[in-house]
Amino acid sequence: MTDCKFSSDAEVIAFARDNSGVFQAGATLGVEEIGDGNINFVYRVYSDDGTSVIIKQALHYIRIIGEGWPLSQDRIRIEAEALQQEAAFCPDLVPRLYHFDAERFAIVMEDIGAHENLRHALIARTRLPLLAEQLGRFTADTLFHTSDLYLDAHRKKELVGRFINPDLCKITEDLFFWDPYCDHERNNINPLLWDEAEALWQDTPLKLEVARLKYRFLTCAEALLHGDLHSGSVFACAEGTKVIDPEFAYFGPVGFDVGSLLGNLLLNYAGQAQLPGSAAERSAYQDWLLETIAGFWNTFSGRFDSLMTEKTQDPSLNLPLYRESYLADLLADSIGYAGTEMIRRTLGLAHVADLESIEDPQQRALAESQVLKLGRAMIMQRGQFGTIDALIAFVRAN
Amino acid sequence: MTDCKFSSDAEVIAFARDNSGVFQAGATLGVEEIGDGNINFVYRVYSDDGTSVIIKQALHYIRIIGEGWPLSQDRIRIEAEALQQEAAFCPDLVPRLYHFDAERFAIVMEDIGAHENLRHALIARTRLPLLAEQLGRFTADTLFHTSDLYLDAHRKKELVGRFINPDLCKITEDLFFWDPYCDHERNNINPLLWDEAEALWQDTPLKLEVARLKYRFLTCAEALLHGDLHSGSVFACAEGTKVIDPEFAYFGPVGFDVGSLLGNLLLNYAGQAQLPGSAAERSAYQDWLLETIAGFWNTFSGRFDSLMTEKTQDPSLNLPLYRESYLADLLADSIGYAGTEMIRRTLGLAHVADLESIEDPQQRALAESQVLKLGRAMIMQRGQFGTIDALIAFVRAN
Repeated sequence: MTDCKFSSDAEVIAFARDNSGVFQAGATLGVEEIGDGNINFVYRVYSDDGTSVIIKQALHYIRIIGEGWPLSQDRIRIEAEALQQEAAFCPDLVPRLYHFDAERFAIVMEDIGAHENLRHALIARTRLPLLAEQLGRFTADTLFHTSDLYLDAHRKKELVGRFINPDLCKITEDLFFWDPYCDHERNNINPLLWDEAEALWQDTPLKLEVARLKYRFLTCAEALLHGDLHSGSVFACAEGTKVIDPEFAYFGPVGFDVGSLLGNLLLNYAGQAQLPGSAAERSAYQDWLLETIAGFWNTFSGRFDSLMTEKTQDPSLNLPLYRESYLADLLADSIGYAGTEMIRRTLGLAHVADLESIEDPQQRALAESQVLKLGRAMIMQRGQFGTIDALIAFVRAN
Repeated sequence: MTDCKFSSDAEVIAFARDNSGVFQAGATLGVEEIGDGNINFVYRVYSDDGTSVIIKQALHYIRIIGEGWPLSQDRIRIEAEALQQEAAFCPDLVPRLYHFDAERFAIVMEDIGAHENLRHALIARTRLPLLAEQLGRFTADTLFHTSDLYLDAHRKKELVGRFINPDLCKITEDLFFWDPYCDHERNNINPLLWDEAEALWQDTPLKLEVARLKYRFLTCAEALLHGDLHSGSVFACAEGTKVIDPEFAYFGPVGFDVGSLLGNLLLNYAGQAQLPGSAAERSAYQDWLLETIAGFWNTFSGRFDSLMTEKTQDPSLNLPLYRESYLADLLADSIGYAGTEMIRRTLGLAHVADLESIEDPQQRALAESQVLKLGRAMIMQRGQFGTIDALIAFVRAN
């Protein structure tokens, strides 16, 4: 396989200059590699007048592992096309795409450097006034407009074909829905949590519900998902929100994206109880997180309902009763997928800083144990909450 | 668009000779056009020694309508590839494919002329001893082996892409799930049934459940369906069964294929009550139909359960509890889709000879009315039957 990796800083700079249209002719440009990318190579190219762009390049393997874990380079085409789909409806909420280069497997896009990684912002207890509304709008608009509730049946099926993404889906299929439910070598388990993990591996009713959610993930081609919508894929600041990295995009169940966000907010909620700071400070931030969850869901579901009312042309699917039933099922699905995200971030391969930055293993185990209990209950009882307020009351009581 | 239609009998004969390998060199061949095909051109080419083949050609429009209803010629590639998929697991139950010609949009296949169209056989009250078992095996084997319960995740997604079939799916989406539920110009309604049709158009709870089934048809990419598995797509005789015409094949919900067969057997059941013959004869054949329904479902579900037990490698999906829950959901789904087939064959565009051959409109209306009532109840109560015997008892009582 050809290795298209940039061979020098000068090559990266030339590529950025030729393919962005944002730099002044003759400007002096610099480049830095941004270490955040685990899977890809990511560069920032900047001019001395403050202009900058991001270049993301996908090689035929996972960057932090090397050639031992090959990964289809088609992921960068999918990311570029997903960014374009998202930008069609939420241009303010995604980085602008300047160029996709199929030969170099690289994209050139807007530098959103003024925004902070949401996971770090949440750990630092930053209150982001626009977050709930903007994430609600992002999910409602991107998911509705790529579903059969909006698209013409031909166009929808054509898009399903363009976004078949087996390599990246397989990562989710394994890491979310299998590894944490058995003693898998990829797991990463706090030794103090071992008894709870062993109990979970024997929990057949839970494994049945996780199997159902996995089967929906495999078969339910509802809408073009972001597919990896955790706090690390969201960048935010007081002025706004940007959602990045849609390389896991594929047609899947709407509740998976919504649930990923809910699950990540609840992971931070559980972490806050054990992170440094006064009890009052931590508790107040937990309140803000729960308000954000309510605001996110209420924006999402209100907007999705309006979009169905105004834009769903299929006469079978624009019945008022169907809208109501669709959104009730979607809440249940989202709560279930949130539960799987919470469990896999506690027992599985990829943990989150919301919990990992609790230094004391005993304290961390307390937070992890709460996450496991909440996650399990959310999966098992996902059809019984009925409202986001009932979920929030349940979280407060547990 | 190029018209690839054969211009003469000689051309058809030469095509059959060159692409089947079954005729003796120098044999004299004849050709006849078979009138059964509504959508395509179908020819039988035969030799004087009794050897024969079928040629099916797809033009860029629907044959019985003409150029006013264009239809993607990709359907013949899909039919050829679906026949190959089916033959991999049920070689005895499908016609053998000799050749697919992408330039002529034509396939050459085995002549199954010794078999009779199942719809005609049922109307004539033929008892087919192998039918239930063979249809159960056909559906179990073709559907299981193209699902995530069997295929590797990469292969499954690759096949989903190959079988994206928007033109043919759109026909089903409209004719099954919308037309019959409104006063649509395409509908074909016995005037004596008008009041019942009008009541059905106002039946919001029914329309909600039909919307749910439609949405599953649109989004649930479970397995490679035949997609048009009514009695006219099955040919049968005492010695065996052949399933033909999979041009509607796409990845959809397993219950749609199973339900199409159930619905067609029940359409004949309702027709028998009004078709000519003694009461005893008709009633005995109705008993045979219900036994066939039980035998079909029991073969299908027993075999599907065994296949899951023996061949499902995905450890999340081979839990005994998951198998049980999967098959329970599948029965509900199948009963629901059977109900939509029954309603659309009564009020929609395409009626069936099981009812149309009842000459007296009053008697026909009695049968049609029973079909509507059964179909509605099966859709509304699909999750409540729990066993095929409960469905059969319900049919007997109504």
